[in-house]
Amino acid sequence: MRTRILRAPRKSAEASAVKGDHIRLAALGGLEEIGRNMSFIEYKDEIVVIDMGIQFPEEETPGVDYIIPNVAYLEERKKNIKAVVITHAHFDHIGAIPYLIGKLGNPVIYTMNLTKSLIEKRQIEFTNAPKLNIQTINYGDKFKISEHLEIEFFGVDHTIPETTGVIVKTPIGNIVHFADFRLEYDENEEPQGLENFRRIGKMGIHTFMVDSTNAEEEGHSLSEKVIEKNLEALFKQSPGRIILATFSSMLTRIAEIIKIAERLGRQVAINGRSMKDNVQIAQDLGYIKSKKDTLVPVEDLHKYKDDKVMIITTGAQGESNAGLMRIVTGEHRHIRIKPSDTMIFSSSVIPGNERSVQTLKDNLTRQGAIVHTSAIIDIHASGHAKRDDLIAVIKALKPKFVMPVHGYYFMRFTNGQNAVRAGLPPENVRLLDNGQVANLTKDNFIITSETVPANYIMVDGLGVGDVGEVVLRDRRMLSQEGMFVVITTLDRKTGRVLKNPDIISRGFIYLKENQGLLDEIRRKVRGIIGRLPHNQPIDGDYVKALVRDQVGQFLFTKTKRRPMILPVIIEV
Amino acid sequence: MRTRILRAPRKSAEASAVKGDHIRLAALGGLEEIGRNMSFIEYKDEIVVIDMGIQFPEEETPGVDYIIPNVAYLEERKKNIKAVVITHAHFDHIGAIPYLIGKLGNPVIYTMNLTKSLIEKRQIEFTNAPKLNIQTINYGDKFKISEHLEIEFFGVDHTIPETTGVIVKTPIGNIVHFADFRLEYDENEEPQGLENFRRIGKMGIHTFMVDSTNAEEEGHSLSEKVIEKNLEALFKQSPGRIILATFSSMLTRIAEIIKIAERLGRQVAINGRSMKDNVQIAQDLGYIKSKKDTLVPVEDLHKYKDDKVMIITTGAQGESNAGLMRIVTGEHRHIRIKPSDTMIFSSSVIPGNERSVQTLKDNLTRQGAIVHTSAIIDIHASGHAKRDDLIAVIKALKPKFVMPVHGYYFMRFTNGQNAVRAGLPPENVRLLDNGQVANLTKDNFIITSETVPANYIMVDGLGVGDVGEVVLRDRRMLSQEGMFVVITTLDRKTGRVLKNPDIISRGFIYLKENQGLLDEIRRKVRGIIGRLPHNQPIDGDYVKALVRDQVGQFLFTKTKRRPMILPVIIEV
Repeated sequence: MRTRILRAPRKSAEASAVKGDHIRLAALGGLEEIGRNMSFIEYKDEIVVIDMGIQFPEEETPGVDYIIPNVAYLEERKKNIKAVVITHAHFDHIGAIPYLIGKLGNPVIYTMNLTKSLIEKRQIEFTNAPKLNIQTINYGDKFKISEHLEIEFFGVDHTIPETTGVIVKTPIGNIVHFADFRLEYDENEEPQGLENFRRIGKMGIHTFMVDSTNAEEEGHSLSEKVIEKNLEALFKQSPGRIILATFSSMLTRIAEIIKIAERLGRQVAINGRSMKDNVQIAQDLGYIKSKKDTLVPVEDLHKYKDDKVMIITTGAQGESNAGLMRIVTGEHRHIRIKPSDTMIFSSSVIPGNERSVQTLKDNLTRQGAIVHTSAIIDIHASGHAKRDDLIAVIKALKPKFVMPVHGYYFMRFTNGQNAVRAGLPPENVRLLDNGQVANLTKDNFIITSETVPANYIMVDGLGVGDVGEVVLRDRRMLSQEGMFVVITTLDRKTGRVLKNPDIISRGFIYLKENQGLLDEIRRKVRGIIGRLPHNQPIDGDYVKALVRDQVGQFLFTKTKRRPMILPVIIEV
Repeated sequence: MRTRILRAPRKSAEASAVKGDHIRLAALGGLEEIGRNMSFIEYKDEIVVIDMGIQFPEEETPGVDYIIPNVAYLEERKKNIKAVVITHAHFDHIGAIPYLIGKLGNPVIYTMNLTKSLIEKRQIEFTNAPKLNIQTINYGDKFKISEHLEIEFFGVDHTIPETTGVIVKTPIGNIVHFADFRLEYDENEEPQGLENFRRIGKMGIHTFMVDSTNAEEEGHSLSEKVIEKNLEALFKQSPGRIILATFSSMLTRIAEIIKIAERLGRQVAINGRSMKDNVQIAQDLGYIKSKKDTLVPVEDLHKYKDDKVMIITTGAQGESNAGLMRIVTGEHRHIRIKPSDTMIFSSSVIPGNERSVQTLKDNLTRQGAIVHTSAIIDIHASGHAKRDDLIAVIKALKPKFVMPVHGYYFMRFTNGQNAVRAGLPPENVRLLDNGQVANLTKDNFIITSETVPANYIMVDGLGVGDVGEVVLRDRRMLSQEGMFVVITTLDRKTGRVLKNPDIISRGFIYLKENQGLLDEIRRKVRGIIGRLPHNQPIDGDYVKALVRDQVGQFLFTKTKRRPMILPVIIEV
């Protein structure tokens, strides 16, 4: 047995809104998903917003580009928004800014310099989005943003530099949001940075909003130093070129890899647009301090010996349009796989991408490359604290209440258990749902029965919010059994069929090979119409329902499939 | 660094067919996927087939029920099929029997008793499939199936009882197929059963066809005894009912769990049809020897105290129609979740099911159950050998050639490396693709340039093979951006538009909220027709192409989406 099971209190709407002096707090996303992180803290007519992230689409939202938070509640109170705090530059924290910031009256964004650059870089792609109003901050900075609210920043460790936690100081107490974070460990396995968290704890913490992404994982974070050591050892034993794929957002690791490559005398070429953009920004801001000639363009790689070359590329998830896939399929202009190549995946496989990553590995191996993945060697670490880290941080902060954020209910529930392990009374763990409003008084954190809109807003192409449940349900249905359109042309006066019914079908059966079936359907439709009373106007809806039912039933009997049947009556 | 990297030889077509005495060997599935396992060994006009499995559909095959092997090659030679060996009763080894056995002339199937029962149980569901011709076998049995071929069976350990390996004795040497297997370990971590494999090795093994499913995994199999010990400890600390979800195919574990429950004085109810069927068969055959009153119907559970009850259920993957989901959503007739319940997932999460399992865990926790998963405690073990097991077995068998089967190229490549670690010369590892024919002579294993058909055959409803790449591509397209049908009704003689064009769209945008867009499209289509030369017959294909291009372009400009545009011209 490796675990002791504790029970955290169940979520429930405890009461209606509090009357006296209190904070209103809610999350508009991030509590029932991974991604779409956004929450707000409201005191009278003063509001602080924390993060504005997107969520990537899922199986249930086919064809959608992103899912963003619903900001209807904040939109109505946009004049009250005194600050937007952006904790770090990952898409699940910044991605919705171009879609939402204008609706919120373009309030001032407080964030670090690197995050600022990456947000601004993205904003350019949205021609109609407003020029942003960003206040650059540093760790330790304090800002009085309104009559009653003050914000203070502090550093946390994550996979992108300049991730910041924030303390929101309010009349009822201090609320701490830790962003995404992990603990770094030194060579003696000692966690780093806890003194600073103890100092913050001494301010007195009312509520700690804490990342739950890895709350189910045992033990503590794998040190980035271990990853780097393992990568360096792999690099040293690689006989030819090294191709390393990772997430373009993992700038901390990318910077370190470039440093190691330089030390080993390898030129580095960056492949993939997002990786290039990010590395460029990191160079401009001094996060990557390579020698002038270490970074070379991909097109110049042929000038160097294979064992003097490293390619850092996007596409570790097997994305069909990303850098690595183009190399593997032979579509890349300058890079082909060679049998002496060493391919390193310094990344995890995001659920849903297993098959495409498998295809990548298969094809790389078929072309003779040696493939290393993080499943076999520790060459990737998550950016999120695990159980022991979470317990250590909660102990350092000693908050009165813990509100697990970032993750599905079970993850947050498990994180609540971590808080209990850290010494919190079980009744002081607070599990909210998206949109559920909490009222915080000096001594309490009350989950009310009030909710604000927090449903999915779908972004699809230029449309924001125009793809709803009806469209998604149709897409899911179409993907399973396809569709079947039956067009019947009738004489408006006599109700007679004017021509043989037209049939269009896609995704159901291959029509060319099933002409017999189509003929039967046409006969069936003519029969339906023929049995209608003659010489009187057609009740279109009635006829359509007849066709839908009878054709549907017929097709099901013949094929045991249920395509979407779409009857059309044309009267001329 | 935890791994040493070796290089196995790359797959290549080495030569055309051998002239002299030789075996022809090919896999019709299982070499470029997980599932659809089927291979054959052919000597002159004598053929042995091993397994007939299905593969479950993937993201790229939406709406499909199963994927089965193409048996065109064998169908033409059905008179030569002397035996079909079925190694064990999992669907990826037996699932295609009802679809294929008739096509192959209903040859005799050699398999163990339990497998026979489970195959026959399934066959009943297929009213048109023939009555099977099954020869029951026992470990150690030998059969001379034809003039030159003999088969001998031996036991291997897997997650279902009566899994059998097979030695096919041929004039050029012995070919061993190990089915799916793992090694069992005793309490001193000593692998069990290697003596028997050494005995088989002493027969002289030409080619070893070896399971690659877990070839990438370090270390050795987790003992089923450890799982059972951990489960028993969990059971003991569960205060109320225990609900345990696992795969209904893991009969070995289910039998053991029932035994433990009985020891702890809990009544056991089985929930879910496939679980009930399997347990019934296992009882009938004596694999489950519970006392008369241990197993109780689900509807009688209320008669017992909560701490005297265990429910074993299907649905561990969050399947929407399975037993567990019905319990969690409150749709089950007899079982509701209670806050004192302990929920145990003795299963892994199959890639693609992460989200539905997450939903299950969230809902169980919300309803107050305590949830245990194999991510947190060792309460599930895979049925497939890991690296150390594979090396040990290869060492025991000492085959001349190793042919990794069951898995994608990278898995099989990695398994080839395991063979090299076990002492095989790298050039004696053979990586085939599905359908690629190998010629085996006394001293060689030659991958020829000859192939037999081995493409996916899709089963969808009653259709076998009628869903092809065109239909699947349409389903994928429809699922992304939906479809848009534009119906234009013209006067056959004048070419004039007779009525305002009809539009049907699904999965694109919500039409009711986009009437303006539809009006613009109608105007556009009328314009296209209006600009055609009047008073002459319409070139339908030309007009359709115009409509498709111009409407498509217009919609893309307006929405940045590309629905499938289907123009219809009705001439009356």
